[in-house]
Amino acid sequence: MILALATKTLVSHIWRPPPISTKDHNRCHCFHRFPSFNLSFLPVLRTKYTVLDPFADPPDPSFPTLFKSARVMLCFGPKPVTSEDLDRYPSLEYILGTSAGINNFDLAACRRRGIRVTSAGDVYSVDVADYAVGLAIDVLRRVSAADRFVRAGSWPVQNEYTLGSKVSGKRVGIVGLGSIGSRVAKRFEAFGCSIAYNSRKQKPHVSYAYYANVKDLASNVDVLIVCCALTNETHRIINKDVMTALGKTGVIVNIERGPLIDEKELVELLVRGEIGGAGLDVFENEPQVPEPLFRLDNVVLSPHKAVLTLDSFAALEELIFSNLEAFFSNQPLRAEVELD
Amino acid sequence: MILALATKTLVSHIWRPPPISTKDHNRCHCFHRFPSFNLSFLPVLRTKYTVLDPFADPPDPSFPTLFKSARVMLCFGPKPVTSEDLDRYPSLEYILGTSAGINNFDLAACRRRGIRVTSAGDVYSVDVADYAVGLAIDVLRRVSAADRFVRAGSWPVQNEYTLGSKVSGKRVGIVGLGSIGSRVAKRFEAFGCSIAYNSRKQKPHVSYAYYANVKDLASNVDVLIVCCALTNETHRIINKDVMTALGKTGVIVNIERGPLIDEKELVELLVRGEIGGAGLDVFENEPQVPEPLFRLDNVVLSPHKAVLTLDSFAALEELIFSNLEAFFSNQPLRAEVELD
Repeated sequence: MILALATKTLVSHIWRPPPISTKDHNRCHCFHRFPSFNLSFLPVLRTKYTVLDPFADPPDPSFPTLFKSARVMLCFGPKPVTSEDLDRYPSLEYILGTSAGINNFDLAACRRRGIRVTSAGDVYSVDVADYAVGLAIDVLRRVSAADRFVRAGSWPVQNEYTLGSKVSGKRVGIVGLGSIGSRVAKRFEAFGCSIAYNSRKQKPHVSYAYYANVKDLASNVDVLIVCCALTNETHRIINKDVMTALGKTGVIVNIERGPLIDEKELVELLVRGEIGGAGLDVFENEPQVPEPLFRLDNVVLSPHKAVLTLDSFAALEELIFSNLEAFFSNQPLRAEVELD
Repeated sequence: MILALATKTLVSHIWRPPPISTKDHNRCHCFHRFPSFNLSFLPVLRTKYTVLDPFADPPDPSFPTLFKSARVMLCFGPKPVTSEDLDRYPSLEYILGTSAGINNFDLAACRRRGIRVTSAGDVYSVDVADYAVGLAIDVLRRVSAADRFVRAGSWPVQNEYTLGSKVSGKRVGIVGLGSIGSRVAKRFEAFGCSIAYNSRKQKPHVSYAYYANVKDLASNVDVLIVCCALTNETHRIINKDVMTALGKTGVIVNIERGPLIDEKELVELLVRGEIGGAGLDVFENEPQVPEPLFRLDNVVLSPHKAVLTLDSFAALEELIFSNLEAFFSNQPLRAEVELD
């Protein structure tokens, strides 16, 4: 019985945030809060597979006897999966990631060991694209600032507030025209915005203006949407030069990863009024958000939630079950990462 | 000299909000705050025309001698222009309105006296449509609520917040498929939303599903965007029945006029969780906003500013100058209201 189950043993690699204390936050490199309902499908998973939890508290009693037979690692959250982590599971054949990004997996080690990897693929792209557009409108038209103004009771007693800036007709620059970026572009086109983009290579069959250099893109747009994956090459791709090129009325939206932007420079430029505004869902040291931003009305702050809708979790759940089924029946996996 | 100027005399009908006191607000039927820069083009206007201000403080010294020769009334704000107001200006031939709506003018009296009327036409439509979509995304995805969560310092210490609802794929219902409504529709289509609408008559050449009845429309959509003009027929068109038909997950956005919705019912349904959320730029008794709304995270509140961008004021200014020029040179007027 155990043997039969053991062929379908998974180990879940769920990163639980550490108990909260200021000290812990300062150590947190990239805290990604997953609401508990994210994991609501685990009981169903357990009816089909043996699920081991190395981080369970109290400890999972099956873990010590079964972990060597685990064939799949199911990963939630940004905790790195290192070569040492892989060493613990000699039967491991497949890492099932649940994020769009896979920058936390040691892919070279996976390749060496012949371990297959899948990501969340396009599951979140639509929601992230929607959210990016929402943040841009919010910053340009000062929606959150207006809501704050009304809730503070200022409307009847205060006769001035800053006018917003028109969305329609803006020149929108997209850094990374992939699954998210191309959806962002489509949405902004309907607002009568013109689209330009930067990516490693110019895309065939795409009519938007292409800039090989992010700074050149920034010089030619009003709104810059950061949609590219975080890699060694894209780390701080939005540096001071790029932001200065964007200019005093330019707006930046980041819905991808905090370290894509030089956050210290961004904060200084915003405080000095040298860029026009920012809509930020991600930060360098989440959940820490630079405090000077709290005082700015041209900034919209969001707790890394662009992917968070009930619908996207339902789609993720479907992807997980479908990929597990495929893996254990030797069918092709969806959203498999090319390791060669 | 005076005679020559008198042929180009305008009277400006600018409604200045009364000095602020609680008592005043309660008397205010429809307070519409105009920022002072709205009127920044008046000095330029005065270089071309004699502009009289009946409400100036201190009083306009030219007014008593010139008001009988005023041929144009330039109107800002929601102050009604009654038959009695028209009686004061025997030379009046033209009312130049600066709002999209003309519900504050006594149009029957204008028709009787042969006074022509123009509105702001489409000048604000794009900005209002952009804002309506922004409010809808904000409510569905909880953007302002997220911003409030981060600014309150809750991210590092609080482990839960409500998930948003997906924008893409929503069924969007538009009440009033005119200049604003059709632009709202176009934008939501790019998000992968389906569109349905209600208006007095089905529009030819429009493929969206048509509902002759607002309640039927509400029963068949997830998001209801109120874009119709306020008239006797549309007063409280969004009543309790309509909102109940929209249901517990339904979202209402109003960027048109407060009295289109039964506000008391709306507040009660929101407080009881019987509709899903609301994005409100307009209210029944502006600038008063029902206080129970301040405690809700599924509501976005905005101080009647959907039209307020620097760009829309520039377009309005252009329309005013162009229509005055046309009027005094007997050319056709733009955005003229049919009075027959």
